[in-house]
Amino acid sequence: MSDKLLDDISHRRYNPLTGDWILVSPHRSKRPWQGQQEAPFRGDLPGYDPTCYLCPGNQRAQGDQNPPYQNTFVFVNDYSAVKETQQDYAPSSRSSDGEDLAARLLQAQPVTGRCYVLTFSAKHNVTLADMAPADILPVIQTWTRIYASHLSASHPLRPQADKALASIPPNPDGELAPPPRQLRYMQIFENKGAAMGCSNPHPHCQIWTTSVLPDEPARELAQLARYRREHGGQHLLEDYARLETARGERVVWQNDGFLVVCPWWATWPFEVLLIAKRHVRGLVELTEEERKQFAEAVGEVARRYDNLFETSFPYSSGIHQAPIDCTEEEAEASWFHMHFYPPLLRSATVRKFLVGYELLAEPQRDITPEQAAERLRKCGGELYRNLLS
Amino acid sequence: MSDKLLDDISHRRYNPLTGDWILVSPHRSKRPWQGQQEAPFRGDLPGYDPTCYLCPGNQRAQGDQNPPYQNTFVFVNDYSAVKETQQDYAPSSRSSDGEDLAARLLQAQPVTGRCYVLTFSAKHNVTLADMAPADILPVIQTWTRIYASHLSASHPLRPQADKALASIPPNPDGELAPPPRQLRYMQIFENKGAAMGCSNPHPHCQIWTTSVLPDEPARELAQLARYRREHGGQHLLEDYARLETARGERVVWQNDGFLVVCPWWATWPFEVLLIAKRHVRGLVELTEEERKQFAEAVGEVARRYDNLFETSFPYSSGIHQAPIDCTEEEAEASWFHMHFYPPLLRSATVRKFLVGYELLAEPQRDITPEQAAERLRKCGGELYRNLLS
Ligand SMILES: O=P(O)(O)O[C@H]1O[C@H](CO)[C@@H](O)[C@H](O)[C@H]1O
Ligand SMILES: O=P(O)(O)O[C@H]1O[C@H](CO)[C@@H](O)[C@H](O)[C@H]1O
Repeated sequence: MSDKLLDDISHRRYNPLTGDWILVSPHRSKRPWQGQQEAPFRGDLPGYDPTCYLCPGNQRAQGDQNPPYQNTFVFVNDYSAVKETQQDYAPSSRSSDGEDLAARLLQAQPVTGRCYVLTFSAKHNVTLADMAPADILPVIQTWTRIYASHLSASHPLRPQADKALASIPPNPDGELAPPPRQLRYMQIFENKGAAMGCSNPHPHCQIWTTSVLPDEPARELAQLARYRREHGGQHLLEDYARLETARGERVVWQNDGFLVVCPWWATWPFEVLLIAKRHVRGLVELTEEERKQFAEAVGEVARRYDNLFETSFPYSSGIHQAPIDCTEEEAEASWFHMHFYPPLLRSATVRKFLVGYELLAEPQRDITPEQAAERLRKCGGELYRNLLS
Repeated sequence: MSDKLLDDISHRRYNPLTGDWILVSPHRSKRPWQGQQEAPFRGDLPGYDPTCYLCPGNQRAQGDQNPPYQNTFVFVNDYSAVKETQQDYAPSSRSSDGEDLAARLLQAQPVTGRCYVLTFSAKHNVTLADMAPADILPVIQTWTRIYASHLSASHPLRPQADKALASIPPNPDGELAPPPRQLRYMQIFENKGAAMGCSNPHPHCQIWTTSVLPDEPARELAQLARYRREHGGQHLLEDYARLETARGERVVWQNDGFLVVCPWWATWPFEVLLIAKRHVRGLVELTEEERKQFAEAVGEVARRYDNLFETSFPYSSGIHQAPIDCTEEEAEASWFHMHFYPPLLRSATVRKFLVGYELLAEPQRDITPEQAAERLRKCGGELYRNLLS
């Protein structure tokens, strides 16, 4: 197969989820690195930190006190990027020539919404990599509950949402009522590690819910819908999961419900894509069994990452699924998946910088996704930290 | 004007150059920061470093020796992301069902090209901020010479290129012959500072020249061409420069040839856009006078950046102009401009991380471009470092 050649030559690969290209330079990882070193992982955090605003029982910046929670805990971000209410905005009316230009070139839209913070564990010093699937399950359940409670009344997945809510234990600390105004999209994401802008090691993620559909999921949805139109109603990610399963070279791990691959079009060195094997449109469609499989898959990715360079591996991750307010067509085109974007390239302290060329021209990577997958396949088993002591 | 309201409410702004949206959360800069701190600037570098592979006379990693150059020096990157020659690649022929899917979902294109490194000065311990316009002029001249020598024989700007070459002093170290195979695009860019992946403080930029048109300039070119079609042949950046000049609130600085603004759609905290005031399609169209004005503008941006937080301000910057091989229409749609993407947000050590939400959903910023422009307007004058001693 002539594709073996791609291990040796510079080429670009197409990302069908976004329509972008990525420049791959497999020979380039040999260059010496004299630049910035990431701070090494210090594994000496306490299980409880009285100064942490996420630990159970502690007081937060704006005065609220956290409950003595057991596993997950959700609250509205004290410094939300969007708010539920703000003054109404309409661009000023246009009349003169300058105002016509402004209508074209100075376009703005108001955005409202609500931002949550969600802790993964009461313990200050664990990460998803340290947590067993049974400990990750409450996180998946909380994600599902929040997603379910924000779906619009007429949402195509409303019946599934009600079913899911009935099958998940309620939050012992009570539920937050969803915002009164229906929102359009919910982005669940985690920034892990200082290198990815995380400012508190207490394991947590964020959930930003907005009145608009952000660019990246909008782009993906358009690409997914287009693929269906052009290929007789087939699903891009179903076809892709089937193809990767048959080929094997980019597969990292799988169970009955989920496939983990280093996608053909990966940008970040050890980027992975976690894909539902059947047509799941949103969290609420996962069966109880699949929620467990999803918890297992997420833990598996996090642990392999940590084992790769024997460090607490930084990444940003996030779930893409059906918007919380959407048409039948948008829901149908959606295919549940999760992205992991980790910056480390060669070791616990040497990262890949996506900077000048990447920002001005096109993302560029130094190892092939096949090489990355091969290494991640070999990183299974027990978490390295647990074997040290 | 109701647009004042945008200082207080969350909104998204449209980038007409790329078609992307940016979420602006003006109230968010108040949140406390407990995350990663950037290393502070150490201003104690020697003027010559015997271990630097860019200093005059030194030996490089692969054995070549640098000439005793005076200001700029160009060489082919010892670790190029693309190479001039490599094995030919054509995707394997498709037949079975799996191969059909592969043709759709595993798309690759070979990329060849040449990557240059270009030093800005023989001195190890200066940056563009330290250099007077007269010292930056040789950099602009070298950029122009390299761009000119890579234009295709039938390029719409070929006559201007020949004229420019005649008006620029030749390189005392001799010229590098352009690659024998015509390439498509040349990206001139600088990564400055460890925070932007720069691994050598010796002032330099890179020039990556490829057989393909990368995504970002392709997107811009398409948007520029579309604007011309939809608005009677008007140029987007001409209209935009006119509008910003009239409004003033986002203008940082200008001279006769160039306008420097914090663009309406800025993503990075103190992002600026440097726009040619008349229709310059590529470096070779700048007059001798305009090359000086461009040198002055680049120095002005770099110095204001350093003055802002009294540090050596990191950024990635790059020039967008007509492709080195292009149609009459592409050249016509091109409008010479330069982007500066700096990560610092609040101080010399606190940067903005474009991570989870930004990668998964949409870029988000914490101060408005108007606030950024106001601060940069006040940072003119002498470089802070020169006033300290
Ligand atoms: O070529 P350099 O300076 O070693 O490398 C730097 O710039 C390149 C182009 O933006 C990036 O791909 C690298 O990640 C970065 O470290
Ligand atoms: O909200 P946090 O964790 O303080 O902030 C972090 O994540 C946000 C969302 O990706 C980013 O906008 C911030 O730059 C980053 O530091």
